[in-house]
Amino acid sequence: MVKVGVAGYGVIGQRLADGVALQKDMELVGVADIAPTLAVRALKEKGMPYKFYNSLPENQKLLEDAGIPVSGTLEDLVQQVDIMLDATSAGIGAKNKEIYAKYNKKAIFQGGEKNSVADVFFHGYANYEKGVGKQFLKLTSCNTTGLIRAVDCLDRVVGIEKVAITIIRRVADPGDYHRGLTNALQIDKAPNHQAVDLMTIMPHINATGILVHTPVTHGHIITVVATPKKKISKDEVLKAFNSHDRIRVVRIADGFLGNASLFRYARDLGNPRGDMYEIAIWEESIVESGNDIMFAINIPQESVVIPETMDAIRAAMEMQTNGAEGVAITNKYLGMGKWK
Amino acid sequence: MVKVGVAGYGVIGQRLADGVALQKDMELVGVADIAPTLAVRALKEKGMPYKFYNSLPENQKLLEDAGIPVSGTLEDLVQQVDIMLDATSAGIGAKNKEIYAKYNKKAIFQGGEKNSVADVFFHGYANYEKGVGKQFLKLTSCNTTGLIRAVDCLDRVVGIEKVAITIIRRVADPGDYHRGLTNALQIDKAPNHQAVDLMTIMPHINATGILVHTPVTHGHIITVVATPKKKISKDEVLKAFNSHDRIRVVRIADGFLGNASLFRYARDLGNPRGDMYEIAIWEESIVESGNDIMFAINIPQESVVIPETMDAIRAAMEMQTNGAEGVAITNKYLGMGKWK
Amino acid sequence: MVKVGVAGYGVIGQRLADGVALQKDMELVGVADIAPTLAVRALKEKGMPYKFYNSLPENQKLLEDAGIPVSGTLEDLVQQVDIMLDATSAGIGAKNKEIYAKYNKKAIFQGGEKNSVADVFFHGYANYEKGVGKQFLKLTSCNTTGLIRAVDCLDRVVGIEKVAITIIRRVADPGDYHRGLTNALQIDKAPNHQAVDLMTIMPHINATGILVHTPVTHGHIITVVATPKKKISKDEVLKAFNSHDRIRVVRIADGFLGNASLFRYARDLGNPRGDMYEIAIWEESIVESGNDIMFAINIPQESVVIPETMDAIRAAMEMQTNGAEGVAITNKYLGMGKWK
Amino acid sequence: MVKVGVAGYGVIGQRLADGVALQKDMELVGVADIAPTLAVRALKEKGMPYKFYNSLPENQKLLEDAGIPVSGTLEDLVQQVDIMLDATSAGIGAKNKEIYAKYNKKAIFQGGEKNSVADVFFHGYANYEKGVGKQFLKLTSCNTTGLIRAVDCLDRVVGIEKVAITIIRRVADPGDYHRGLTNALQIDKAPNHQAVDLMTIMPHINATGILVHTPVTHGHIITVVATPKKKISKDEVLKAFNSHDRIRVVRIADGFLGNASLFRYARDLGNPRGDMYEIAIWEESIVESGNDIMFAINIPQESVVIPETMDAIRAAMEMQTNGAEGVAITNKYLGMGKWK
Repeated sequence: MVKVGVAGYGVIGQRLADGVALQKDMELVGVADIAPTLAVRALKEKGMPYKFYNSLPENQKLLEDAGIPVSGTLEDLVQQVDIMLDATSAGIGAKNKEIYAKYNKKAIFQGGEKNSVADVFFHGYANYEKGVGKQFLKLTSCNTTGLIRAVDCLDRVVGIEKVAITIIRRVADPGDYHRGLTNALQIDKAPNHQAVDLMTIMPHINATGILVHTPVTHGHIITVVATPKKKISKDEVLKAFNSHDRIRVVRIADGFLGNASLFRYARDLGNPRGDMYEIAIWEESIVESGNDIMFAINIPQESVVIPETMDAIRAAMEMQTNGAEGVAITNKYLGMGKWK
Repeated sequence: MVKVGVAGYGVIGQRLADGVALQKDMELVGVADIAPTLAVRALKEKGMPYKFYNSLPENQKLLEDAGIPVSGTLEDLVQQVDIMLDATSAGIGAKNKEIYAKYNKKAIFQGGEKNSVADVFFHGYANYEKGVGKQFLKLTSCNTTGLIRAVDCLDRVVGIEKVAITIIRRVADPGDYHRGLTNALQIDKAPNHQAVDLMTIMPHINATGILVHTPVTHGHIITVVATPKKKISKDEVLKAFNSHDRIRVVRIADGFLGNASLFRYARDLGNPRGDMYEIAIWEESIVESGNDIMFAINIPQESVVIPETMDAIRAAMEMQTNGAEGVAITNKYLGMGKWK
Repeated sequence: MVKVGVAGYGVIGQRLADGVALQKDMELVGVADIAPTLAVRALKEKGMPYKFYNSLPENQKLLEDAGIPVSGTLEDLVQQVDIMLDATSAGIGAKNKEIYAKYNKKAIFQGGEKNSVADVFFHGYANYEKGVGKQFLKLTSCNTTGLIRAVDCLDRVVGIEKVAITIIRRVADPGDYHRGLTNALQIDKAPNHQAVDLMTIMPHINATGILVHTPVTHGHIITVVATPKKKISKDEVLKAFNSHDRIRVVRIADGFLGNASLFRYARDLGNPRGDMYEIAIWEESIVESGNDIMFAINIPQESVVIPETMDAIRAAMEMQTNGAEGVAITNKYLGMGKWK
Repeated sequence: MVKVGVAGYGVIGQRLADGVALQKDMELVGVADIAPTLAVRALKEKGMPYKFYNSLPENQKLLEDAGIPVSGTLEDLVQQVDIMLDATSAGIGAKNKEIYAKYNKKAIFQGGEKNSVADVFFHGYANYEKGVGKQFLKLTSCNTTGLIRAVDCLDRVVGIEKVAITIIRRVADPGDYHRGLTNALQIDKAPNHQAVDLMTIMPHINATGILVHTPVTHGHIITVVATPKKKISKDEVLKAFNSHDRIRVVRIADGFLGNASLFRYARDLGNPRGDMYEIAIWEESIVESGNDIMFAINIPQESVVIPETMDAIRAAMEMQTNGAEGVAITNKYLGMGKWK
C-alpha cells in the first residue's frame, strides 16, 4: 500500500483525495489545508472521513473555533506518507517542495506550478515512462490533460503532425467568487500555453492555438484541427475515440447539447459532486477539412486531471513501470470505461 | 409500505424518486417518462435502480433503440401503486389525473399545475392537516415552499401580519438549454404568484412582492420584509431559524458568499447531485426595519420541494394524521437537521 | 461661465465631461487621466474634442507613443479651472484633493471616496442648500443617487418614515474586465451602505436593506418598501413619479421587460453611449403592502449621477443658491423630461 | 437619388435605415414595422426622423394608441421606393417578396431568409459583380459577412485553399428577452452554416467549422485556420488586414481585451448605439501553424452587415457596376477607414 497525502484541499485537492481513496493499492493518510474553508467545513460535517492537517500554524485557533479536528501539521503529514499530491494555490507548491525534499519524499504538483518545480512534466498516456521512479512530477493543466488524451489517441492510430486549437475556456468553477467575467469574451495572446505544453510533452507535434475565456462554469470546450501524417476517415477517428477508456463519445442528438449537459448528466449518474473523469467528444463535431480532422472536446475542469494524477503516483512510486499497465489499473479503480 | 410511483423523470421527478427511496415506510414502484432523455439514459447507465415505464406508447421504439429497459406503460405503473407523484411538465398533470382517477389512486402534483387540479394546495408545515386523507394534493412551487418554511417559522413564534418579498430568481437549472436569459434582469408584473400562493396557504397573512429574474442557475434568493404582530429581536429570530430542521442558518463570514457557495458546499458534502433539502438564511442578512424584520433566504430550486412532497404522501395516505409527526418522520429519513 | 475640469476620464469621467459640455453656463477646460486607456484612445480618434492633461508624469512617454496630444499636467489643468470634478479610482481623489486645496479650487468627488474627503455629502434634490458655497462636495453613489430621487419624490408628497430596500446590483459595467461574477448571486452584509448613505442625506428617514450582486452589466434594480406617514394610493404614487423630471415611468406592457430593455431603448434613442440620465420605475411594479408602498427602480449606473453632479457644481459655485432653480437649469441643459 | 425603404425596424432594420440616411446618393423614404415596439417608440420620442408605415393593418389601432404617427401601409411604402431592404423576422421576407414583385421593385433580404428567396447570395467584396442589376439579393449573415471580409482579404494577397473556423457565438443581442442561454456553452452540428455559406460565395475555397454558442451579447469571435496557396508571413498577413477599410486591427496590449472592449470603445467613440461597422482582428492572435495562418476576428453582430447591404443597393441599382468602386463609395459615406 502506497501511502499518499494531499496538500491543498480545494477544488482539485478534494477530488485527488477521493481518487486516491478509490485506489485499492493506495492509502490516503490525510489532507492538509490552511483554513476552515467551505471544503474543510464540509469534511467536518461529513464526519471527518479523512484526517485533517493544518498547513498554517497561525490559523490553529481559527480552525479549532470552527470545530475542525486537527491531526497535526503539514510536516507531520509529510513524514507519514510515501508521496504527496500538492494541489495548493499556484506558487505555494514550490515552497512546500522544501518540506517534501527535507523528508526525502516524492511529490506530484498540479498545472499551476512552474515546470521547473519538477523533474518531469507528466501525462499518463503520452509520457508515462518518463515519470517512472522520478521524485518530483508536474501534471499538465486540465485543458492540456484532456487535449493530450485526444491528440495522443489519434497519434497512436495515424500519427499527428500538427494541431491548431481553439480553447473556449470556462472562466470560473461553480462556487468561485474570487474570479469571474460578466457578459464578455476575453482573448489571450496566442499561442496559448496549452499548445506550448502539448509540444513539451509531445515534441514531435507542432501545436499552436488561441484561447478565449467565456463566462461559464461547466467545462471548457476545445476545437482541434489536427493534421495527420496520412488521410484518416471520420469513421476511423470515431472508432479510435470510442476505444479509449478516458474518452466518452457523445451525441447532440441524444441530448448532449453542450458542456452543461455533461455536468447535468454526471449529476444524474450520481457521481460524487457531479464529476466526470472522462473528456467528451461530440460525434457530430467531427468533420474533415481537406486531409485535416476537426472535432470538439469537452473538458470537465474540476475532475479531469484525477486519473492522470493517479497514473503519476504509479509511475513515480514504480507501482507499474509500464504505461499501459499503469493507466489500466487507474482506470479499473476509477471505474472508467465501464459505462460502454 | 406505501407504494409510490413517479410520473415525469426530470429535474424534480428524479429527486422525488430518490426521496421516496429513502423513506423506510415507502416503496418506490417505478418511474415513468416519455423519451430517452439524459435523465433516463443516466438511469440506464446506473443499471436501472428504478423500473422504468413508458408514458408515450408511440415512443416505444425510440426507447428501445436507446437500450432503455421498459417495464410497461404509465397506466401499468399506476395500477401497482397507492399514490402517484406527478412531476410532468405543466399541464400534463391535469391530463394524467384522468388515469389516476380511473384507477381511484391518489396523486400529488407539483407547482406548475393549476390549483384546480387538486383538492388542496399543500405545504407540510403550514397546512398539513388540510391534506390528510385527500385524494389530490398540489405542492407549492420551489420559491413558495421555501418562503413559507421561513414565514411559518416566525409566525409560530410571534405571529406575522404581512410580508413584502423580493424574489431574485434563478432563471434556469444547470443543464437547461430550453430557457435562459443573457446579461439581463427581467421584472414580472407585481404582485408575484408566490405572494398570492402564500396567502392561499396562510390566509391570515397579507403578502405582496416583486420578482426579478437573473441569469444564474444555482438557487433563488428571496428578501423578506416581515411585519410581526409585536416587536421581536434579531436574536429571537435567529434562534427560531436555528431550531428549524429544514432551515440552515449560514454566515458570509464562514464563506457562504451567495447561492453558488451553497451549491458548492452541497457538492462537497457528497450529497447526490449536489442537492440540498434545506433553505439557507444568512445570519448577516437579518436586520430590523422599525418593528419589521428583514432577511434573505436561499432556495435550492431543484430539491427544496422534496421534503414537503414526502409530507404530502404522509398526509394523503394518512400515514401520520398529525403534521408535527408527519414532518418529523420525513426529516428523519431525509437526514435533515442531523448536521446541527 | 464657470470653468470646469475633470480628473479621471473613465466610465464616469467621460460622462461628466460630456454633461458639462452641455451646460450653457459652464466651460469644460479639459480632462485628465494617467494612461492611454481605451477612453483616451477614443478621445484621440474623435479628434480631441476635449483637451487632455496627464496626471502621471512618468507615463508621458507612454501617452506620446500612443499619439495622444497632451496639453499639460493635472496641476496645469487645476490652475485654469474654478472647480474640478474628480472621478478617479477610489482613494485617488483624497490624494488629488491636496492639489485642489493648494490652488484653493473647489472640487466634487464621486461616491467611491470616503465621506471625510468632503465638507458635505450631496444630492441635488434632497439637500442642495447644504452644498451651496462649499469647497468640497461628495456625490452619492449611483444606487443611492437614484434611490434618493424616488424616495425624496414620495417624501415631498406624503412624508416617508422608513424604507427597506433590496438592491439587485449589476456587478460590472459593459466592457469591464477587471471585475466580474459568473453564474452566481453574491450577498453583502446587511444593512447595505446605500441605506446608511440615505440616512446621512435624509436623517429623518429610517432605512435598511440587503444587497445582492448579480452577473449582469446593464442597470441595478432596487425594490423599495416605503412606509409613508399616512396612507397613499397607488395612483397618487404614480402621479408623483410621473411629475418628476428625473424619473421615467415605464411599462412592462410597452416592452420594458427589464434593465436591458432600458439600455436598448437609450441606444435606439441615439443617446450618446446609450446612456440615460433618468431612473426608471415600472408602473406594474407598484403595489400596496398594507399602508406600505412597494415598487422597483432601474438605475443606469454609468450615467445616473451626471445630473446631480451638475447640480453640485451649481451649488458649490453658487450659480443658483436655491435647489429648485439649480436642478431646473441642469434639467433644461440635459434635456430631461422633454420626452414626456 | 435612389429611393430606399426598410421593412422591419428591429435591430438590423434601424441600422439599415441609419446607414441609408448617410449615403448622399440615396434617399430613405420610410421604415415599416408591425407594432409599437421599443424601436418604434424610440423613433417617436426622437420626433419621427423617418416616416413610419404599418405592415400589419390589424395593428393600426395599437399603433395609434401608442401615439405613433403612421404614414401608410407597407404597400404604400413599396410603391414610393426603388428598392426595399427587408430586415423582417426570418420567413416574413419571403412573404413580403410578393409585394415587392407585384410592384416590380428590387429588394435585398437579410441572412435569416432562405437562399431561394433571392437571385443571388451577395457579399460586397467577394462577389459584387454577381449582384449587378439583379432584382432580389440576399445578404450573408453577420458572421459570414465578417468572416468573408477577412478571408477575401487574404485570398486576394496569397490565394486561400481552405479554412477551418471556430465560431464562438454571442447568443443574444443586448436587450433581447426572447432568447438567451445561462451558464452554458452549446454546440451545433458541424459543419456550421457559415462555412457552407462561405463556399457558396467563394466556391474555390474549401471551408468547414464548428460553432459554439456562449452566453454573451457583445460580438462573436471567430478563430480561422487558413491554408494559403503558398507560405505567407505573419507580417504580410498583418499588412493586408491593416490595408482593409472594413477591418480594424487592434491590440490586447492597447486594452482591447475581448468583444466587450470593442463595444465599449465604439460607445466611447460616440458612434450611434455604440455600433461599429468594422470587424476587428487581434494582432496578438495571428500565429503560424506550419504553412497555415491562424487568427481571431471580432464580429459586431448588430451592425456588421450594414456596409455590405449598402454595397448591395449599389449593385442591384447599378449605381456602380464595378465592385471596387461600389464598396469605396459605401466606405466614404459610412466614414470607414478614416480612423487610420
